[in-house]
This record gives sequence, C-alpha cells and structure tokens, in this order.
Amino acid sequence: MAGKMNNLEEYGKKAKIASRILAGIPVDRKNEVLNQAADHLIRYQGKILEENSKDIKAARNAGVKGALLDRLMLNEGRIASMAEGLRQIAMLEDPVGEVLWMKQRPNGLLIGQQRVPLGVVGVIYEARPNVTADVAGLCLKTGNAAILRGGREAIFSNRAIVECLQDALKKTGLPEDSIQLVTDTSRESALALMRMNQYLDVLIPRGGAGLIKSVVENSTVPVIETGTGNCHVFIDSPSDLRMGIDIIVNAKTHRPGVCNAAETLLVHKDMAEIFLPEACRALSERNVEIRGDEKVCTLVPYAKKATEEDWATEYLDLILAVRVVESIDEAIDHIQKYSTGHSEAIVTNDYSHARRFLQEVDSAAVYVNASTRFTDGFEFGFGAEVGISTQKLHARGPMGLKELTTYKYIVFGNGQIRQ
Amino acid sequence: MAGKMNNLEEYGKKAKIASRILAGIPVDRKNEVLNQAADHLIRYQGKILEENSKDIKAARNAGVKGALLDRLMLNEGRIASMAEGLRQIAMLEDPVGEVLWMKQRPNGLLIGQQRVPLGVVGVIYEARPNVTADVAGLCLKTGNAAILRGGREAIFSNRAIVECLQDALKKTGLPEDSIQLVTDTSRESALALMRMNQYLDVLIPRGGAGLIKSVVENSTVPVIETGTGNCHVFIDSPSDLRMGIDIIVNAKTHRPGVCNAAETLLVHKDMAEIFLPEACRALSERNVEIRGDEKVCTLVPYAKKATEEDWATEYLDLILAVRVVESIDEAIDHIQKYSTGHSEAIVTNDYSHARRFLQEVDSAAVYVNASTRFTDGFEFGFGAEVGISTQKLHARGPMGLKELTTYKYIVFGNGQIRQ
Repeated sequence: MAGKMNNLEEYGKKAKIASRILAGIPVDRKNEVLNQAADHLIRYQGKILEENSKDIKAARNAGVKGALLDRLMLNEGRIASMAEGLRQIAMLEDPVGEVLWMKQRPNGLLIGQQRVPLGVVGVIYEARPNVTADVAGLCLKTGNAAILRGGREAIFSNRAIVECLQDALKKTGLPEDSIQLVTDTSRESALALMRMNQYLDVLIPRGGAGLIKSVVENSTVPVIETGTGNCHVFIDSPSDLRMGIDIIVNAKTHRPGVCNAAETLLVHKDMAEIFLPEACRALSERNVEIRGDEKVCTLVPYAKKATEEDWATEYLDLILAVRVVESIDEAIDHIQKYSTGHSEAIVTNDYSHARRFLQEVDSAAVYVNASTRFTDGFEFGFGAEVGISTQKLHARGPMGLKELTTYKYIVFGNGQIRQ
Repeated sequence: MAGKMNNLEEYGKKAKIASRILAGIPVDRKNEVLNQAADHLIRYQGKILEENSKDIKAARNAGVKGALLDRLMLNEGRIASMAEGLRQIAMLEDPVGEVLWMKQRPNGLLIGQQRVPLGVVGVIYEARPNVTADVAGLCLKTGNAAILRGGREAIFSNRAIVECLQDALKKTGLPEDSIQLVTDTSRESALALMRMNQYLDVLIPRGGAGLIKSVVENSTVPVIETGTGNCHVFIDSPSDLRMGIDIIVNAKTHRPGVCNAAETLLVHKDMAEIFLPEACRALSERNVEIRGDEKVCTLVPYAKKATEEDWATEYLDLILAVRVVESIDEAIDHIQKYSTGHSEAIVTNDYSHARRFLQEVDSAAVYVNASTRFTDGFEFGFGAEVGISTQKLHARGPMGLKELTTYKYIVFGNGQIRQ
C-alpha cells in the first residue's frame, strides 16, 4: 500500500506541475493538441485495434459477453467517433479566463472574479475505452491536468489511446503529463487516488452505482457524484393522452440502459382508467415489463405486482414500476422519497400543477411535458458532457466545460490596507 | 453509536421536511423571521446571558482563560451585534429563484437554469456562540434548513440562541425545524453527521485546522473546506518602499489571529538591503518576531533563524517568516509549494510581473499592491460571509449568500421526445 501510494504520488506531482503550465496556455494551442490527437487516433488506429484485441481476448477468456463485451470493443467507426469528439471539443468556446464580474470597491480596490481551471482532475471509470479520449479532451480544453484510472478490462486499449494523446502533447510542446493513465488497476490504486488531496482538486467517478458509492464513501478528495437516475414521469392531466404515452414510451424505451431513462411511472387516479391500459399496451409492445401497484394490476392484467424495492430501483432495463396516486401531492411525495435527484417530468395541462412540480421537485432537471431523456449535455446545448451530477455542490445535472472550472479573485490595488 | 445515528437521523428527517417548505417561502416572510429573531435576541438577552454564564463557569472550572474564554463570553454589546447581523441579512437581496439563463433549443424546449437553495446545510463549529445566530440567519435567508453542531463549551449559550430563533420561526408560521441544534456534543455525534448523505447536502466546518482536517477526512457528505490561510506577501519592486511596508505591516499585524493575515514575507534580492531593515523595524516595533533565512538574518540582526517548518506554518500570531528570493519565479514557486491557497499579494510596479503573479499564483484571492486582509465577504461587497473556502469545488474564497445555493434546470416542453 505504501508503495502504491508513493507511485501514485508521482502521478500527482507530475500532474500538478503540468497543470500550472496548462493554466496559462492560450486556447489556440490547446485546440492544436486536440486536433493533432484526433489525427493520431486515426493514424495509429491499427495499433489501437491491436491493443484492444488483447483486452477483448482477455475479457472473452474471463467469460465476458454481450453488452459488456460490446462496450469494450473498438472498431474503425468507434475510433473515428473518438477522433471526431476531440475535434468537436476543439471547436467549443474556451471558458477559461472569462471575467465573471469585476467591480470597484469604495476604497478603490478593483475586484474581479475570473474563471480558471480546477487544476488536477482525477477520473475513475469502467469498461468503455472511449471515455479515455473523451475525458482527456475535456480536461485539456479547460486547462486541467487529468489523471485517468480506467478499468482493468480496458487497460491495453486505454494505454494505446493515452499514448496517442501524449504524443500530440509532446509534438505541440505541451507537458506530456497533462494526461496520465494509472496503469495499476488494483483496488488499492483507486483508494490511494481517493486520498490524494494534496494533488487532486476533484475526483469524478464515471460508471456503475457500485463504483460511485465506493468513491463517495472513501474519497477525501472532493467528489462530483454522477449518474444514478431513478427518474419519474408523472401523468397528471395531459390535454391529450397521446402526448403522455409518447413521453413515457420515449423516456422508458429510447435507451433503457442510461441514467436519464424513466424507471417509474406515476399516474393520477382520475387518469388511471383511460391512460393505463393504452399506455401499458404501447410499452409492452416494446417488451417493457410492467410492475404495478394493486390498482395498476387491476387495470392491466399482465402487470406483475410491484414490491417496495421496485420504487427504489434503477432498472436500466426494459422494466417499469407503475403506481396510481391520489393527487399531485402524493406524486411529489413519492418522488421526494424514492428519486435519486436526477430528472423527473410531469405531463399536464394544469398550469398551477406545472408550477408546483417545477418548484417543489428537488431534482437536477424537472420537466413539464417532455421526456426525461433530454437531460444530457448535448441536448442542453453545452456541446460536450463530462457527466451528469446528482449532487448539489459545484455542479448539478449535465456538466459541460464550465463545470470543469473554478474561479479566483483577482484584485488590483494601489496600496490599500485594511482600516 | 447506532443510537447516536438514529438520534441524528431524526434531525436529518426533520430538516429535510423543513427544507422543502423553506424552498418555497417568499423572501418577505424569511426577512420577517430574521427581524423577529433579532428582536427576540434583545428581548431575551437576560436569559441568554444567564445561560452563557453557565458555559463561562464550566470553562473557568476547566481552566480555560484568555482569548479562548473571551471568545465564549457574551455581553449586551455582543448580543446586540448578533441581532444587528440578522437585521443586515434581512436587508440583503435574496439570491433564490434567480434564473441564471434561459434559452430555447432548436426542438422548442425552453431550458432555464434557476438558483435554488442547497437544501439541508450542516455546520460543525467551535467555541464562539455568535456563529450560531450568524450561520442560522444566512441559511434561513437562502431557504436552507440548518443543522448546527456547536462545541460542548458553548452548549448552554447556543441552546438559548437557537430557542430565540425557533421561537421567531414558530411565530411567523415557518417550521421550527428549519434551525436545529445538535445538543449531543460528543465526537460520535459529529462523526454521525459527517455520514448523513441521505439528509445533508453539504457540511461546512468552521473552526481550527484540527476540526477542518477531521471533517475533510471523515465526511462522506460533500464538504466546503474553510479557513486555513498560510498567506504570502511578495515585495518585488514597489515604486515606493512605504507602500510595501504599510502592506506587510497591515497584513501581519492588523489582526494576526485570522486566516487572511500574512504569515510569510518574500523579498526580491534586489530589494532586500533597502527594504528589509526598515520593514522589519516597523514590524518588530509592533512586537512581530522575525524568522528569516540566512540572508535575512544577516540584514536583520535580531531575526531568528527560520526552519523548513516555518514556511509551512500558519502562525495566527505575531510571528513572520521572511525569505529573500532570487526572482519572481522563485517567489511563485515558494508560494505554490507552501501556500494553503487562500490569499497572496505582490507589491510591484512591474506590469508584467503583476500579470504573471495574478495568472500563475493558484490561490483563492491574488492581489497586486494591496493587503491580504481584504479577503473577506464584507470587504468584497457580499454583505455577508459564510466562511472562506480554500477548496476549488463549488465555492472559492469568501462565500456570501449565493454560495449557499445551487441550481436546477427547469424545462418547459409541449410534448418533446428524444429522437
């Protein structure tokens, strides 16, 4: 453990030094690295695919298959997407340096709040190797040094990708240590990273609920908690049934494995009889399993009985918990009790209910008459996404480039002392 | 421990319920509570002083004296200040509800970012009972429920103050649980609070370095780290010596026990001979002990020899570490190595050095030609101060009311689903 820590401390020291240089690099040069890195990914794709095949082979030997194996797999198309992602980041506006406000105080001091990089960003993530290029690009654009600790399953792929990026840094005269990959994928190395307060300014876990929980519980470095979404759609009193059905079908089935997919449908009791049979038919036609409360099971004969556990579960699958509520109050109470604070939608034509839902539901994104699937950096127009925060400190909801920055106060005086 | 946790969970549950009500309370009513609470502090000052005398007696019996005892002591003047503080908070603008931006997306979704309260704010603090009224007032104004855990030494005083505040809440029809005091002042209760992720949105430690370290290391709740300031003044090439002397004397001696006081003076080698003897004389006339490097000890015969430890120490006392540096690079390197990231000042008439210092020094507040003592919510014009953050996540430097808020995304649709 001591050895691990010392080893990781080296990463920390190097990152800190690199971060100081990066903080002063003009955006043109950062963009040059991003574009070069994109070129390198394409140029060296043979090598990347070769390394990726080692990961795939190891995973197959370990019995991994299906969606998990697919996540790990790279091909020319996926490498092209990674490269394209870097080029798109290069085209975004650089938030660093912006003076958010500046004012003159009565004593003549000129005080300004200026956006600066966070410094050193640690990211702990799981199988998908494309996260490596993506996160590195976002950190670089915002002038942050990145320490990446990907999963053991993707180690060969991640190494090949980081080499491309480091090569681009080197060619552009920027410190290679701006992007470092922790090659020790033991649990100890993750734990050591979580304790590196001296070097890391923030730690972002990207992955499943288990990883996120472990980071939140063990990290002394400030964490941005991302991802878990037990999202709700509440059918209150839509002006037309079609809109309600379209929204729940979209929120549940458009991409069931992601965090902004709906997991529970709440229906006002006055709507239940006319809405539920038709909506559940549309859902089960798309292979969605319905788990309902007693009322639902009466109206929808093929529904299974929901248990207390169902209300709290993020299925990430074609399963939907369904409950009939007495009122908007009961709907909001249910959401407050079971929601992870990600995204919730009301479908209604009642103005005061819409206002109340927006005001009272305490989640990162609250919707009136739209699918929860829109909680996404790109859909929100940020041009990029670092992850979706479900905590309230620093960043909430989809995080774009700005969320990878902090600010400092710059103060111009001419000899002021405090009286 | 399990009992403690259950007990604290009750605080958490009550706070959560109160926070939901508070989030929707218009500012007029919040101000009414603040003004009533101020009245109550004055009206019941006899009772508060009586309770305070119990704390004072216990502290005396435990051998507490001097500054520590003074911090604990209340009198009519101090209670009047607390009341005045609450009235001032009532006069500030309420940040809650502000729509930071709103835009229409190509698909017609109207997406806005709206400022909302954090929810439940936990504060762990030490001896000074005035912190109780102060923090409770700031949380209330921003629509947050507060769970306050003050020190054992001030328990009677804190209880009396919180009763006044709760009474005002009750009279105004707001939930009394908006402000709760944890009366169990054991270490276990503090640790239990640090693990209440389910109920607390943020935990703010206010007190000495030991308290802050313990909270950062043990809390799984997101923390805002406040306070420690190993602040530097760098005399580069001032246009007049007087300005340099005034600034270091002010930064060191104006109030040596606070976090924005200077702890280390760095002097460019070209300035050392003319600046140091005069500056150190002015400092030692104000009883400042000088601990210098070799060069300093040569120029200032009464200086003590500084050790490596001195560069890293936040004295909070009339002691100053002094070092001669070869260049601005060495000054910046020294600061990056030893600073706690609070406040640093350069005194110079060199334009490019001023720019470099502002750009390269990675602290919450960086000054040109002014005293570090200005790093303060009131001096920055925020009208209030929650503390001074030395981390980069969420808030950096002096925290005002805005820093006790987060945002949520409110989205207005008319049936949009994701394609």
